[in-house]
Amino acid sequence: MDKRYYFGIDIGGTTVKTGIFSAEGVLLEKSEIATRTGQGEEAIFGDIAAELSRLAHANGAELSECAAGIDIAGPVDEEGFMERGVNLGLDELYPARILSDMCGGMPSFALNDANAAALGEIWQGGGRGVSSAVMITLGTGVGGGVIQGGRVISGTHGLGGEIGHICVEPGEEELCSCGGRGCLEQYASATGIVRMARRVMAESEEYSGMRVTDPLTAKDVFDLAKKGDALAVRAADESMDRLGRAMAMICYVTDPESIIIGGGVSRAGEYLRALAQSKMEKYARLSKHYPKVVLAELGNDAGICGAAKYAMDMTAKQIEAPECGR
Amino acid sequence: MDKRYYFGIDIGGTTVKTGIFSAEGVLLEKSEIATRTGQGEEAIFGDIAAELSRLAHANGAELSECAAGIDIAGPVDEEGFMERGVNLGLDELYPARILSDMCGGMPSFALNDANAAALGEIWQGGGRGVSSAVMITLGTGVGGGVIQGGRVISGTHGLGGEIGHICVEPGEEELCSCGGRGCLEQYASATGIVRMARRVMAESEEYSGMRVTDPLTAKDVFDLAKKGDALAVRAADESMDRLGRAMAMICYVTDPESIIIGGGVSRAGEYLRALAQSKMEKYARLSKHYPKVVLAELGNDAGICGAAKYAMDMTAKQIEAPECGR
Repeated sequence: MDKRYYFGIDIGGTTVKTGIFSAEGVLLEKSEIATRTGQGEEAIFGDIAAELSRLAHANGAELSECAAGIDIAGPVDEEGFMERGVNLGLDELYPARILSDMCGGMPSFALNDANAAALGEIWQGGGRGVSSAVMITLGTGVGGGVIQGGRVISGTHGLGGEIGHICVEPGEEELCSCGGRGCLEQYASATGIVRMARRVMAESEEYSGMRVTDPLTAKDVFDLAKKGDALAVRAADESMDRLGRAMAMICYVTDPESIIIGGGVSRAGEYLRALAQSKMEKYARLSKHYPKVVLAELGNDAGICGAAKYAMDMTAKQIEAPECGR
Repeated sequence: MDKRYYFGIDIGGTTVKTGIFSAEGVLLEKSEIATRTGQGEEAIFGDIAAELSRLAHANGAELSECAAGIDIAGPVDEEGFMERGVNLGLDELYPARILSDMCGGMPSFALNDANAAALGEIWQGGGRGVSSAVMITLGTGVGGGVIQGGRVISGTHGLGGEIGHICVEPGEEELCSCGGRGCLEQYASATGIVRMARRVMAESEEYSGMRVTDPLTAKDVFDLAKKGDALAVRAADESMDRLGRAMAMICYVTDPESIIIGGGVSRAGEYLRALAQSKMEKYARLSKHYPKVVLAELGNDAGICGAAKYAMDMTAKQIEAPECGR
């Protein structure tokens, strides 16, 4: 049955963000609690259940009128199973089942954090109004979420949208954290951009503001590039070139309406967006028309927004058949 | 309204294959006529309309009881529009509208040839029973079709499933026909495999049966590889390594249940299938679980099968809302 309220829960390694939304999609209240990692699932999910109870009552709701979406880092398969809950120090778990059991059977649904952000952005953010999109989150790592027909594609084995591990540079010698070589994450994540900057500096004698910035961050690289610092321009170009390759590959798989770029690195704004768009067009040569590259708009709220929307979609899905009178 | 019969029409540059299927999916009759290219759309589609009339009457059907799916080479967008109908020498056309107008308004739907093959294979071929699959067709070129939730993803700009132009080798110097460099097609198509073989031979002094085979075909390369010819083994390995890269990228976008390998090159059979599977696993390191790599089974009938299934799905889609009593 449709519910009157939807929780969006974004479980991170440090804090859990929660939000309660009306059925119309209005965020009524949000909060943040510490994540008690390393103390087992009872500690983490018990804290969340208590916080949801508090939020519900503060907003005049009963848990029986609610459904919850859980946004969590790492692959979640179609059954809601996680092999590895990296951030939580937990393995082999069904996060939604645990929460549901602690909340009197409240319908609960888990999805990957990047998928949640993608769903949030097409619902209320930079991708508003489109039904197919791929979101690429440039943060410490590179995550992604694939939306088709308004729905998240998490994939058969939970690998859907793991854009960060697309191989964009088969000749790379350094290893990625996944064990592969040449993953997008090695070039376009915050750390990847700094790695590119160091490589560009090592290959040149030229002066650059990057040489006197310590510690050097991805933000510094883009800030200097915008000011015309030649080596920073080259580093940004090298990083975005690899991002453009991955985006062109995405065009050749699902060809979405929009590609949404989010994560901390995307604060570099229009400079980054325009560069990524032109690099994508350089590698996707088959058509005169391309996905629109847009910036994410929801920032840290994308996760709770998308998780709540997922709970909304999943509860609606469960009633599709009876609604048709069959 | 659901129809009693479905035509599958596979328009190639030389011949048009047609089949009439019962609503239960039984192929009642198939036929093949010449494609009158270079004489405008009236010639090509007029011939097809006449053949459909003949097939209908021979099988006791009226055109008003039929719907048609048209399988055609080149990108077809969501509206059924084609910028370029390469094989037909026609540009900017809506193939399904033309045919429908010539057949008294018979519901007609066009889709890309590789998408049609993919749909055919999950309906009655190597991908039977799965709801998400990517088909990769290794022929003169490399085509692809993406199926998600049982439906074809043709993409917003018709680029969905253009797997052959995924960049797998950014350092490549030779140009692909699309204007890009390092496209999968340059390595894993029939001509790409021969190109790899010539490259391997040029880099070595070693004897190989490939050196005394003229003309050398992709089939020869795989036949010799199966017999242990060292350079042929290396050429097959190089080609399938690039295919594995593209397949790993596909895992990281939609993560389908199956990846179906079809096209003439796939006749190399289990040797090719197993090699492609192991290369995909080499590049997709995030999970212990992967899509199943299977061989296509329908051969030349995949197109008419998939086109008929598309017509079936599209007519069913059009009646979804009224069926629910809304």
